[in-house]
Amino acid sequence: MSVVIRGIGELVTGDPAAGDGALGVLRDAAVVFDGGRVAWVGPSGDAPAADEAVDAGGRCVLPGFVDSHAHLVFAGDRADEFAARMTGRPYAAGGIRTTVAATRAASDDVLRGNLRRLVAEMARQGTTTVECKSGYGLTVEQEARCVRIAAEVTGEVTFLGAHVVPPEYDGDPGGYVRLVSGAMVAACAPHARWIDVFCERGAFDAAQARTVLAAGAAAGLVPRVHANQLGPGPGVRLAVEAGAASADHCTFLDDADVDALASSPTVATLLPAVEFSTRQPYPDARRLLDAGAAVALATDCNPGSGYSSSMAFCVALAVREMGMSPAEAVLAATAGGARALRRADVGRLSPGARADAQLLDAPGHIHLAYRPGVPLTAAVWKDGVRQV
Amino acid sequence: MSVVIRGIGELVTGDPAAGDGALGVLRDAAVVFDGGRVAWVGPSGDAPAADEAVDAGGRCVLPGFVDSHAHLVFAGDRADEFAARMTGRPYAAGGIRTTVAATRAASDDVLRGNLRRLVAEMARQGTTTVECKSGYGLTVEQEARCVRIAAEVTGEVTFLGAHVVPPEYDGDPGGYVRLVSGAMVAACAPHARWIDVFCERGAFDAAQARTVLAAGAAAGLVPRVHANQLGPGPGVRLAVEAGAASADHCTFLDDADVDALASSPTVATLLPAVEFSTRQPYPDARRLLDAGAAVALATDCNPGSGYSSSMAFCVALAVREMGMSPAEAVLAATAGGARALRRADVGRLSPGARADAQLLDAPGHIHLAYRPGVPLTAAVWKDGVRQV
Ligand SMILES: [Zn+2]
Ligand SMILES: [Zn+2]
Repeated sequence: MSVVIRGIGELVTGDPAAGDGALGVLRDAAVVFDGGRVAWVGPSGDAPAADEAVDAGGRCVLPGFVDSHAHLVFAGDRADEFAARMTGRPYAAGGIRTTVAATRAASDDVLRGNLRRLVAEMARQGTTTVECKSGYGLTVEQEARCVRIAAEVTGEVTFLGAHVVPPEYDGDPGGYVRLVSGAMVAACAPHARWIDVFCERGAFDAAQARTVLAAGAAAGLVPRVHANQLGPGPGVRLAVEAGAASADHCTFLDDADVDALASSPTVATLLPAVEFSTRQPYPDARRLLDAGAAVALATDCNPGSGYSSSMAFCVALAVREMGMSPAEAVLAATAGGARALRRADVGRLSPGARADAQLLDAPGHIHLAYRPGVPLTAAVWKDGVRQV
Repeated sequence: MSVVIRGIGELVTGDPAAGDGALGVLRDAAVVFDGGRVAWVGPSGDAPAADEAVDAGGRCVLPGFVDSHAHLVFAGDRADEFAARMTGRPYAAGGIRTTVAATRAASDDVLRGNLRRLVAEMARQGTTTVECKSGYGLTVEQEARCVRIAAEVTGEVTFLGAHVVPPEYDGDPGGYVRLVSGAMVAACAPHARWIDVFCERGAFDAAQARTVLAAGAAAGLVPRVHANQLGPGPGVRLAVEAGAASADHCTFLDDADVDALASSPTVATLLPAVEFSTRQPYPDARRLLDAGAAVALATDCNPGSGYSSSMAFCVALAVREMGMSPAEAVLAATAGGARALRRADVGRLSPGARADAQLLDAPGHIHLAYRPGVPLTAAVWKDGVRQV
């Protein structure tokens, strides 16, 4: 079944060769989906016929968002911890244990229901590709359960056994690292594509993180790293050394960190909804872009440090707080996320790409920042099939 | 036709006498709508039958948002001005003239279509009462047209001829004030409830503002004032002196301003989406609340200084940036807005109030701040009739 969307006031192709600027914008354009792929883009008047025709009425079509960082397999919420934090208590990694206890106690169906609800909520907001991490199980059996359930909804599954040291290993972080790097990675690798570690004071230090990433790589998983969220640290340089696809957070960077990112293919994935919800300072996207680093935006959707599922909200924050132009932010939320997941088939709307797209109830991409908080996504296609 | 909503995990009545805390929260509750009014609230198990039954499934029901400050009668947008501002250009009141030119050139149907689109967008986001200002016409005929069109969608129409001095009166602001206070207020008052003035450097000074408010009052309109948005000034004290229902913005206040608000019934209406979109400092809600002033939150939805229609976004900003607790922010977005419009029938869900309510896809009101950017409104009733 093929689809043609005509009358697009602004088509963001994400391909600078296909149109104006870094977003590759075409005006008064059309796009054709066929067999789950983009088959054609061009002037609206020249569009070929298709099984179904949609009139965009001058509105904007852009690639579906690629949310390259999310923690969606969990039970319970931490609304009370959030409310307490808003009265002055700082965010600490230890709160993760609250969710670990709730997740362990939950049935598969509860975890699955929560996960599917969040993925559907994301789809309604224009997200067509989502990465999903484990990390609230923290036993061999529980982590394997989490990656298995995540794999039901996405191919971008990340094993994050090294999220935090669980209570059973209090005082023996080395023992837990051995478990993660041994039996746990063996049980989880068949269901995952990526290995991740929370390299931060209160979580795992550089040596522990290296051990975990090496074990993951040996099991066929590609590294990504939670780095430099709560303070300066070795995470970013470790990510670059390990050839990680992405170093995520990048809130506290020194010049060597920025240089390391700029001179490597490792993407700096910025998660400003977390800084919003923890009242931390925002990462400096401008500094990274000016240095030549590749930047992605993602939600980090999770019940503790930031429970937003809205990529549009991240775009608006990146423009307000992080020195990005609307075009840079939209690119980071689409092509940037794709690059952080080493995907060439999503995050763009040029021939051959997956037919993952969204229609905005707005004339252009600027409105994602210009109209903060407003749910602008009016229609979504994934693999050429209308979702919303 | 009556409706009962059962299984409400958290019912925010907005009536401290009816439940816990300032929000008057009831758990495991039900609410009954009949004849467009709230007929009953109480424990879910005790709820009487009704023509239609809805199961909230443990989710939260709260009053529809009361957005007491919005500029919705206009044509065109200012996305390019926004993008330029994000690269460093400051916000100035003069940009209003761009929208004035577009509005004057637009047909009634274009204005009406844009207005209805925005009101519908607000309804989808839980707003059931909206105030709407004129102020982009700035001739007798054009302002009268704007208030007439606004009155088609809301009873809360505000005549804001004194928004900015139009180009025809460059160098003669006094002449324009005479026009506003004479023929213009006479033409607009039959369609409006309120008179407003933008008392700010670059717009109208204290003497001009007093003249306009007095003329409005003589024509039966109740004052409200755009005050202290871009810098310190006489707006707030002038609003209190004039017995205004509300002083709006309140971003730059000195101690005398705070005292004046605290010792008067004039509500301080805070519009943080504007500070978000203009990169101005946020108003200090904590200081106002601690001093005893009444506080409301509203969007100020307009194409120039802030084009958000999302009250939930304002709640999240108020909690992140302005020292409000989630409960205080939700109260300000419901009962606070009602107070700013001198309405006792909206902003609460206790017997006798209008049946204006929203069901959240979340267990409690905290989620409005805890899940920023996420469209949580799952259903909306206005006058007891399902809208969304
Ligand atoms: Zn994370
Ligand atoms: Zn205003």
